Amino acid sequence: MSRYKRFKQRVYEVLEVAKPDDKLSRAVDIILMSLILLNVVLIIAGTFELPKTAIKVFSIIENISVAVFTVEYILRLWTSDLKFAELHPFRARLRYVRTFAAIIDLVSLLPSYIPAMSSNFMVLRMFRVLRLLRVFKLNRYTHALKDIGEVFKRKAGQLISSMLVVSFLMIIAAVLMYDAEHEAQPEIFDNALSGMWWAIATLTTVGYGDIYPVTVVGKIMSAIIALLGIGLVAVPTGIISAGFTEQIEKKKAETKNTEDEKTFCPYCGHKLDK
Amino acid sequence: MSRYKRFKQRVYEVLEVAKPDDKLSRAVDIILMSLILLNVVLIIAGTFELPKTAIKVFSIIENISVAVFTVEYILRLWTSDLKFAELHPFRARLRYVRTFAAIIDLVSLLPSYIPAMSSNFMVLRMFRVLRLLRVFKLNRYTHALKDIGEVFKRKAGQLISSMLVVSFLMIIAAVLMYDAEHEAQPEIFDNALSGMWWAIATLTTVGYGDIYPVTVVGKIMSAIIALLGIGLVAVPTGIISAGFTEQIEKKKAETKNTEDEKTFCPYCGHKLDK
Amino acid sequence: MSRYKRFKQRVYEVLEVAKPDDKLSRAVDIILMSLILLNVVLIIAGTFELPKTAIKVFSIIENISVAVFTVEYILRLWTSDLKFAELHPFRARLRYVRTFAAIIDLVSLLPSYIPAMSSNFMVLRMFRVLRLLRVFKLNRYTHALKDIGEVFKRKAGQLISSMLVVSFLMIIAAVLMYDAEHEAQPEIFDNALSGMWWAIATLTTVGYGDIYPVTVVGKIMSAIIALLGIGLVAVPTGIISAGFTEQIEKKKAETKNTEDEKTFCPYCGHKLDK
Amino acid sequence: MSRYKRFKQRVYEVLEVAKPDDKLSRAVDIILMSLILLNVVLIIAGTFELPKTAIKVFSIIENISVAVFTVEYILRLWTSDLKFAELHPFRARLRYVRTFAAIIDLVSLLPSYIPAMSSNFMVLRMFRVLRLLRVFKLNRYTHALKDIGEVFKRKAGQLISSMLVVSFLMIIAAVLMYDAEHEAQPEIFDNALSGMWWAIATLTTVGYGDIYPVTVVGKIMSAIIALLGIGLVAVPTGIISAGFTEQIEKKKAETKNTEDEKTFCPYCGHKLDK
Repeated sequence: MSRYKRFKQRVYEVLEVAKPDDKLSRAVDIILMSLILLNVVLIIAGTFELPKTAIKVFSIIENISVAVFTVEYILRLWTSDLKFAELHPFRARLRYVRTFAAIIDLVSLLPSYIPAMSSNFMVLRMFRVLRLLRVFKLNRYTHALKDIGEVFKRKAGQLISSMLVVSFLMIIAAVLMYDAEHEAQPEIFDNALSGMWWAIATLTTVGYGDIYPVTVVGKIMSAIIALLGIGLVAVPTGIISAGFTEQIEKKKAETKNTEDEKTFCPYCGHKLDK
Repeated sequence: MSRYKRFKQRVYEVLEVAKPDDKLSRAVDIILMSLILLNVVLIIAGTFELPKTAIKVFSIIENISVAVFTVEYILRLWTSDLKFAELHPFRARLRYVRTFAAIIDLVSLLPSYIPAMSSNFMVLRMFRVLRLLRVFKLNRYTHALKDIGEVFKRKAGQLISSMLVVSFLMIIAAVLMYDAEHEAQPEIFDNALSGMWWAIATLTTVGYGDIYPVTVVGKIMSAIIALLGIGLVAVPTGIISAGFTEQIEKKKAETKNTEDEKTFCPYCGHKLDK
Repeated sequence: MSRYKRFKQRVYEVLEVAKPDDKLSRAVDIILMSLILLNVVLIIAGTFELPKTAIKVFSIIENISVAVFTVEYILRLWTSDLKFAELHPFRARLRYVRTFAAIIDLVSLLPSYIPAMSSNFMVLRMFRVLRLLRVFKLNRYTHALKDIGEVFKRKAGQLISSMLVVSFLMIIAAVLMYDAEHEAQPEIFDNALSGMWWAIATLTTVGYGDIYPVTVVGKIMSAIIALLGIGLVAVPTGIISAGFTEQIEKKKAETKNTEDEKTFCPYCGHKLDK
Repeated sequence: MSRYKRFKQRVYEVLEVAKPDDKLSRAVDIILMSLILLNVVLIIAGTFELPKTAIKVFSIIENISVAVFTVEYILRLWTSDLKFAELHPFRARLRYVRTFAAIIDLVSLLPSYIPAMSSNFMVLRMFRVLRLLRVFKLNRYTHALKDIGEVFKRKAGQLISSMLVVSFLMIIAAVLMYDAEHEAQPEIFDNALSGMWWAIATLTTVGYGDIYPVTVVGKIMSAIIALLGIGLVAVPTGIISAGFTEQIEKKKAETKNTEDEKTFCPYCGHKLDK
């Protein structure tokens, strides 16, 4: 392998966490994660009224971060033909650019390079928040999230179905509560969307207390809906619970099957014919 | 088959989603579902103060919807002898009319045809809300809801029992809290129903904050009831969880049994006699 | 059997629900349950300001109820030697009197017979509430509650342990929040019991909004405690969930074992040696 | 064994609960636990305004408690070479001093011996709260907590992952809500930390009602976040549920394995070769 290729291979390994004993790779990971977390802290701190010195320090850290993340993005793009080795180098890059992680990286960086985007308007400030999506890079490093994601994927059908029922219940509740309470509290229950806001606060059991029924009809309906709200929590929890139990069983079955193939019947000790 | 019969058969297939590759049936489904959702949006929008043009547009959409749903109802009625093929055509229709879906369809349509019902009174407005039940038509198209429904049916006994205990707890709590708080807050805890309203808000952990104990006795009782409220969530969740796990086991057992019949004992490798 | 014995046997069967096709027994059950529920309604209605006629009607229903429940109690006492057939008749009665159901029945009836207890004082009114415990008679008729009770019994150790941890967390939270908030809100966080009241409202996620932290330290501690509150719900729910799953497995295993004993190995079809 | 050694052995047994029929050991346990609970009550009572006599009585109980717990600490230290019999006596003591229980004991006692620490300053009062950690001594006596702890340990990866997702969601929510609500309620949503406080109150479904959105954008975002909050409860509950079910399965498997080794194949009745 040429020195260039070896260097590229090394860069790729360092960025993608090749082996657990690769100290440089670990160090780079930790630095990048720290920088991500520092940026999150800066965004929160940026909403406070700050002295001028702090703003200057923030600006410097901001610029360093942007530089580091830009270099990271370019390096990842450069080594992406090693990641998608089966593709043509150019296609590999195109494919990398379209991965979820790369899109987040790019969108997080763009507002820093386009001055018009860094002005102070409400809509543009949202872009700064998007930078927080860098936190999802942590996803790349942790494997336990996969198990959770798998359960959600396998149970997606049932979870979406239960969400459909909940949505239906919310709409019914919103309109019914508007009808029941509009006359008594015309300013609080001013339209069906207020009813919807009430329904969400009640069904999720948050209950801020900014909106609640005062009429007897409203209270009775509210009681029924609140009790159904328990079901709202119980059903997804039950589905997810069963999903995790199923996953454990599956992993156990897989381990067992590979063991079975090797030796004996685990029940009576007879040698297996296979 | 005569041309008439073939046409009727086709209409039936289109309305009831015969095969996954039946594009016309899919299109009709999507149109009907969109119209149902549009109607839901209109009901919510109708609670806002609207300009005259909007009201006119709404009225037109309303009329089109009623026309479409009426045609749908008639077509379903007409083809219901294909659905209940084992019955006499007339009895098949009578049976269809009494299905849950058909009743919802009819009740949703009626207020649009009977002018007296479309006046602005409170009670009659409830009929408009009932139209939302059309959303349950979605039920007809999604099969994952069945799994959830099955778990609820199988666990109905335990769920109802736990609800009984909860009801008992609520009544006890309502009267106890009335006794404890009536003197201190005569206007808020004015009778045992206020106590019940408090008990529901507390046991479901909604806690709006419109009604809460101020006396020491009331607070101690409230604390005990709130802690029991956790049990209120835990028990149905536990029951439903176990139900979903049971269902997964059952489905696995069914798949396994059919596999077992075919080949070998999965445990000791002996050929099966069957 | 003498006529007297046959009559006594019949009374016992009617009260204790002998066979599902025993119509008289069912009727008596329904009448007693209805009377219990009617009494519950009366207690709630009694907290409203009522016209004189209503009070008179209530008093009549009250007296009839007391008469019916007294007769029921005497009949149950009389037939209790059939219930505990293995005991000496006198000991059987003594045993019956000490059953949970009999104690509830007696305590529910006593205040109606002792005039001093029916006066209007706060403490004595509690006795009226106790009459509500008659609702637990429903327990006698429903068997699904047993399953729930069994799960709680089997998991008692773990549930109590988790409650211990919660209690510890509450006490810590109560004192910490008192220390953090007492100076800022001396009237709301006036002592550690206020802190406890806050801890319960927060950990159970009720959150009335009558007491909450305003200082930064208090808010940070509150945030940590609220997040732990999720664990508070998750642990008992998890324990109960696993308990219900275990119960289902056990019942399945029992059914299977009895089947196994009879015939063949369910896995390879070999005849069993036993 | 010398008399000294026998006495030491006895002290060790009494403190560490050797056998269930050891009455002295049980008595000492109960006395120590009662004293711990009494101290907890005193700390709470100490936040009330008390008459002088009460303060004197409290001070006496305080001193007795400190004396008893000091003796207990010394005795445990003295007998710790029996606990860690495999170590050199001096190393055994060093090891005991570093156990979690011993650290708690020492930290609980220190403020009573160092006068400067018993003054009335905020920071030092925290030490008094730490004494509450003595409650965790109960941990030593209850074994059911272990099962719960084991589940948490085995599921730590998944639980931490889900907490990471929640934290991410909270930060996103905090900044978004600050952006949405800051202009409308500049005093309530004064910075992103207020947004965080709102996010925690909403995601844990506590909802005190001291902070909630008033703008349409804020309410829509709040609704989405509150619905995600259900997932926040559902995921850890599901993980813990599955963990408890797994634990039950494991224990059953262990029991079964030991039984299997002894006799026959439970499935086909063949005698086992082992």
